[in-house]
Amino acid sequence: MSDTTKRATLQHVKNYKSLALLGGDELNALCSEIRDLIIEVTLRNGGHLGGSLGAVELCVALLRSFNPERDKIVFDVGHQTYAYKILTDRLDNFHTLRKRGGISGFPRRAESKYDAFDVGHSSTSISAALGFAKARDLQGQGHEVVAVIGDGALLNGLALEALNNISACDTKLTVVLNDNKMSISPRVGGIAEHLAKLSVSAPYKWLKQFIKNQCRAMANGRRVENKLDRVKTKLKSLLLPTNMFEEMDISYWGPFDGHNVHEMQEIFELSKQYHKPLLIHVVTQKGRGCAEAEAMPSVFHGVGSGTVIKNKQDKKKNDSPAPVKIPPVDWSRAVADKISQLAERDARVVACTAAMEEGTKLQNFKSRFPERFFDVGIAEGHMLTYAAGLAAGGVRPVVCIYSTFLQRAMDQVVHDIGMQRLPVLISVDRAGLNGEDGETHQGLLDIAWCRSVPGLTICAPRDRVDLDFMMSGWLEMGIPMMIRYPKGAAPESISREMRTPASWGRAEVLRRGRDICLVGIGSTVSVMLDTSLECERRNMPSPTVVDMRFASPIDWETLDNLFASHSIVIAAEDGYSAGGLGEALAARVSLFKYSCAIRTIGVDAMYIPHATRAEQLDEHGLTSRGVLSALEDIYDGYDSAASG
Amino acid sequence: MSDTTKRATLQHVKNYKSLALLGGDELNALCSEIRDLIIEVTLRNGGHLGGSLGAVELCVALLRSFNPERDKIVFDVGHQTYAYKILTDRLDNFHTLRKRGGISGFPRRAESKYDAFDVGHSSTSISAALGFAKARDLQGQGHEVVAVIGDGALLNGLALEALNNISACDTKLTVVLNDNKMSISPRVGGIAEHLAKLSVSAPYKWLKQFIKNQCRAMANGRRVENKLDRVKTKLKSLLLPTNMFEEMDISYWGPFDGHNVHEMQEIFELSKQYHKPLLIHVVTQKGRGCAEAEAMPSVFHGVGSGTVIKNKQDKKKNDSPAPVKIPPVDWSRAVADKISQLAERDARVVACTAAMEEGTKLQNFKSRFPERFFDVGIAEGHMLTYAAGLAAGGVRPVVCIYSTFLQRAMDQVVHDIGMQRLPVLISVDRAGLNGEDGETHQGLLDIAWCRSVPGLTICAPRDRVDLDFMMSGWLEMGIPMMIRYPKGAAPESISREMRTPASWGRAEVLRRGRDICLVGIGSTVSVMLDTSLECERRNMPSPTVVDMRFASPIDWETLDNLFASHSIVIAAEDGYSAGGLGEALAARVSLFKYSCAIRTIGVDAMYIPHATRAEQLDEHGLTSRGVLSALEDIYDGYDSAASG
Repeated sequence: MSDTTKRATLQHVKNYKSLALLGGDELNALCSEIRDLIIEVTLRNGGHLGGSLGAVELCVALLRSFNPERDKIVFDVGHQTYAYKILTDRLDNFHTLRKRGGISGFPRRAESKYDAFDVGHSSTSISAALGFAKARDLQGQGHEVVAVIGDGALLNGLALEALNNISACDTKLTVVLNDNKMSISPRVGGIAEHLAKLSVSAPYKWLKQFIKNQCRAMANGRRVENKLDRVKTKLKSLLLPTNMFEEMDISYWGPFDGHNVHEMQEIFELSKQYHKPLLIHVVTQKGRGCAEAEAMPSVFHGVGSGTVIKNKQDKKKNDSPAPVKIPPVDWSRAVADKISQLAERDARVVACTAAMEEGTKLQNFKSRFPERFFDVGIAEGHMLTYAAGLAAGGVRPVVCIYSTFLQRAMDQVVHDIGMQRLPVLISVDRAGLNGEDGETHQGLLDIAWCRSVPGLTICAPRDRVDLDFMMSGWLEMGIPMMIRYPKGAAPESISREMRTPASWGRAEVLRRGRDICLVGIGSTVSVMLDTSLECERRNMPSPTVVDMRFASPIDWETLDNLFASHSIVIAAEDGYSAGGLGEALAARVSLFKYSCAIRTIGVDAMYIPHATRAEQLDEHGLTSRGVLSALEDIYDGYDSAASG
Repeated sequence: MSDTTKRATLQHVKNYKSLALLGGDELNALCSEIRDLIIEVTLRNGGHLGGSLGAVELCVALLRSFNPERDKIVFDVGHQTYAYKILTDRLDNFHTLRKRGGISGFPRRAESKYDAFDVGHSSTSISAALGFAKARDLQGQGHEVVAVIGDGALLNGLALEALNNISACDTKLTVVLNDNKMSISPRVGGIAEHLAKLSVSAPYKWLKQFIKNQCRAMANGRRVENKLDRVKTKLKSLLLPTNMFEEMDISYWGPFDGHNVHEMQEIFELSKQYHKPLLIHVVTQKGRGCAEAEAMPSVFHGVGSGTVIKNKQDKKKNDSPAPVKIPPVDWSRAVADKISQLAERDARVVACTAAMEEGTKLQNFKSRFPERFFDVGIAEGHMLTYAAGLAAGGVRPVVCIYSTFLQRAMDQVVHDIGMQRLPVLISVDRAGLNGEDGETHQGLLDIAWCRSVPGLTICAPRDRVDLDFMMSGWLEMGIPMMIRYPKGAAPESISREMRTPASWGRAEVLRRGRDICLVGIGSTVSVMLDTSLECERRNMPSPTVVDMRFASPIDWETLDNLFASHSIVIAAEDGYSAGGLGEALAARVSLFKYSCAIRTIGVDAMYIPHATRAEQLDEHGLTSRGVLSALEDIYDGYDSAASG
């Protein structure tokens, strides 16, 4: 009930239909209450804080001007939709954000009729909205279609292709450019400079020209002219003489204040009367309303669950000082440190990221080697081909990218890197199940599609010792290579004490047992080791445990020996089963007629919704419990057959 | 020897090093001889005629101005490099163009030290060149880096990302925009309009400003100014006040006549003294020097081997008229016809292509349903998301795309179509081995990566009867689906007489035999049928032949029965083995402990160079001879074991 008193306006409004009735003060109260709720839930559950805080007024203005049941509002990425979700029937469930079974951190058609298009990767909104607009025209419907895209997302090739295609499509489409002057990392590139220039001027000149040239041609031109006049007074100085949107035959209106609901609403209403493609440029502040998020937008772009904002802590003066905890080294950090180490000893080593400097923990590399660090913006395809060019030119680029985003550069991996055998290291972060970001951020496809790429070496370290070995090996050999590792902590060393030194390209037997052979790679190696201990505890035969280490090419010599000398083989991988390594191993068993029974554990052919990574691993049997259960199934059969 | 007399200048020059010595008349003779050679060889061997003819003077000017042993000239796509190849030590081998073991139709680093970067898909050149430029800077080298890109390729997202990234890279790079006002299909989009505007004006104003503002700051400013003055006199009218390149902080020089070697050479020389990123816009005519190719640039973009130009035929007046041959219906035509048929009975059906209207034979659809036909330009990613938007908006898009180009839209297939279960039909042309275009145009990956995409139905028809069934089924069911088919003729009907009607999603047994089961899909079905006939001829047991039809989800019920009832299974697919269907089948056999022996035939993990499709199929065992040989291997063993 305290929520009700705390959020009186929001509780009263409940959803967008009552928004129209609110006056100025109530709107301010509403936005402030929405911000509080977003901050509270996002700090508790984790999520995308900065973008959502910056877009509160924008979402309110959109919902006052458009009808989300009829009009199509297509958000880009979806980082910024929390206010929209709250105002479209998800207020009461908002506390379940990103929790298993709760509401998603991104728009989901299956979650709400108000979500027009599923999204999670950037830069799709204009293409999709253009499709919606054209479908509307073909079916003789009359609703509005609005794409809401950030300034960072606009610089991706997909969005630029769509912008370029707008004029040819000959349809009415409104693009709202939510310009917070900072995408995930600070924007880079020539178009960003151009936007910056537009942002410091104002559309007086354009408005004048617009009214003169275009409004008169419109049926209700006079009315538009009057309204525009009213808006005009709020604007600042002179518009630049031309801009890139106008050159692509897209009318440009802006920039407007993205925290002024009334101004935006007026503009959105006007846009409905305009019958040509239109880009409305609104300027917002990322993290608006949360001092820390305003000050450090990159840090507060996405926050983990249980985040505590420092000055909120300070208020509790009686608290004893928190014990200093050294955070465990995670995989991103371990890789970034290793890149720095390689860069120190070899001047050819450079690092690339696509707007994920913080996500891939490259800040330190950047400050130590600024001239050897490249953030290309949200441009994964360009990054991979750029890296290929760097490599062909004699340097040794390491590309840090999340598994899910590597899907945006498949052709570049195949042709520019694999086919030309260029020494690029594709460092694939967040490979496997990824937790709360849900369907669009799982890294479940990379093994399956990359192992079909000829000439691409693929490895997955189980610990930091092997990570070092693999990354050093890449530099030494100068080959196209991919190294994959999951979200989370990177163990210092697994099973070093029983290690027979493993060579390049070879699988490594970590425990020698009998009858049962457990095959792991990357994060499933420790699962297999745990399982083997549990087997001993249960007086089952002590299993052999092998770490494949290399997913392509596979070390068949070692595996063939194990297939021949064990009666049961279980292989587990943190990725889709279809096309995965388990399938390759099982195929080998039948093609070479090994007599062992084999079972494979991987992720079934489905899109995996948000939950914690631990919950997801458990659900798909990628835990020692899951392996044991598979083993018991097969072992019981084997055991009774053997003793029968 | 007739070649020597025919091509006196070319034989004399031999390669680029002597180019500098040629005067105006000799240059004209040289270009004309190069054109003759290109026309002769391309009509005989097949290849990309129009682009290469249009770029003859451009290649000559580049090779007079730059040193291809030191400087990096990065071509885009490589359609236009024949003159470059001829002048860089490949004159004597040029007649082997696109023949097995001969020179490639595209730049290949392995073929020549003069080819800086392998290419075959469009729009990679600026990214790669930027990499080369940055690698040069980091290593303290001083050579020039030049990207040569066409106007169509420039509109792809990858190229736009790279353009946007140029200013942030802070390096010297020269982009030569070879604007023939027509990429593969006529250009579409706002940027094309912008280029058109630039093309009709000339850079007087810019030159003036350039000289004033920039040359003075240069060490040898005075000399540049003088040279520019000389060039200036050749130029036509006034430059538009701004252009998109300047807005991205890339200096724009142009447009220049792309058929005037001296003018281009002068500009290229100037460019070496300019130390900022620079785009040089040259205007060329596609098909230049070949009347038919000039008149019909789309038709002569690429020609098959043995093409005869009509008016050359006319010259031979004594020839008897050629018998009228009805060309066999190829797969592209069959699919295009079916789309028209579906569109006739369902107003929701629309068709999309990415600059491949002619390649995918959609001209007829376009003329019948102009408002339901969308050519988005070379923008595969946008096309797929656009199609997803169309589908979400209520229409039923069919996307026609080559297998190799679908790699450019992986993320869109996964998230925008598969994940949202949107009813888009991805019609994958040129799936499998593709012949003379070589490494970059093989369609060998689609089965492997697409079958890992959850929720995407994948089918491959063996004939036009099944094609009709599958495409109609898609429309009825409204699911995300991919249909794949190879280059070449589409049989009307295979094995209809022995058909038990196959249902949706089911494999189809075409012949019931014993002991041996041959599994095909798409183009390998007829191979399996031929093999079964050959088996009978050899008095081997008559094999069962099954057409999988659906690659995802696989009809395990039918296959499990066959695995259980046959002792030998051979499966063949026109795609990579790694991650392919054969692996899935073999894995099934061991996971479920079927006792059958299984062999799989597919393409090994390598990049397949140019040869005819028939040669390639033969090389990889995808012929009845190959299946028989696999069968004999396994059958001999089985037979002796059975009788022993």
